Amino acid sequence: MKIRHLFALAVTLGMVGTSAQAQFQKPEDAVKYRQGALFVMGQHFSRIGAMANGRTPFNAEAAQQNAAVVLAMSKLPWAGFTPDTQSLQSRVEPKMWGEMDKVSAAADRFMGEAVKLDAAAKTGNLDAIKKAFGDTAASCKACHDAYRQ
Amino acid sequence: MKIRHLFALAVTLGMVGTSAQAQFQKPEDAVKYRQGALFVMGQHFSRIGAMANGRTPFNAEAAQQNAAVVLAMSKLPWAGFTPDTQSLQSRVEPKMWGEMDKVSAAADRFMGEAVKLDAAAKTGNLDAIKKAFGDTAASCKACHDAYRQ
Repeated sequence: MKIRHLFALAVTLGMVGTSAQAQFQKPEDAVKYRQGALFVMGQHFSRIGAMANGRTPFNAEAAQQNAAVVLAMSKLPWAGFTPDTQSLQSRVEPKMWGEMDKVSAAADRFMGEAVKLDAAAKTGNLDAIKKAFGDTAASCKACHDAYRQ
Repeated sequence: MKIRHLFALAVTLGMVGTSAQAQFQKPEDAVKYRQGALFVMGQHFSRIGAMANGRTPFNAEAAQQNAAVVLAMSKLPWAGFTPDTQSLQSRVEPKMWGEMDKVSAAADRFMGEAVKLDAAAKTGNLDAIKKAFGDTAASCKACHDAYRQ
């Protein structure tokens, strides 16, 4: 069951095929990969948030650059949630491994919001960016609330 | 002197401007950011290497996807080498902080090679990919040999 759901996630994310063979040399690499990707993405996302929330001055070019990085990276972390990492130390809520269909749907939702955030940032319109930032943040939070300790 | 060189690096990488203000909330975040970005990039780069060196079957689409990620991420890690991280635990060779002009040149070289690797991957020609992979790997190694413990 778990494997089936992970496979569904991999299909969703276009990870199946030759490129999916031995993506990580060891499970520790998969954890490092997903944590690294999420952290880097989070840094760029939070810079948009700082502008959206008025903590830093709005700079349309910076918002666009950060949204492009978030979009490029939005596809990456999920490949690191491999079944062989279940026993490793991380912030994953153990029940997550039995609900990979929901994780897959949540990742899909987030990736869709990242596309919209990138589009909003390209308009240079702060109100559009605020709306898209809020929607994207909500998609992050939904998954973190459910599956992150 | 060090600050001047870091500034030169930031200019090179287009990091100067509003977006450069308080890029990281604390120095630890800058270290985590650059290590995460380098690790994620390295994973995708090594998948191209496995194909270039015949350890995994050549898959043109996978090579192209991995090269696109390497290219997108090639611009990121450098912003994490901030002066306030000098005292933190990492694999940086201490002399690096006094040679940021060379680091900047090395980062430039690497980013140029990543552009060529992406272009080679788009052709789908394995020989072109092998050549570009080797050139890119050499640019990684030059900097690692000089500045990574």
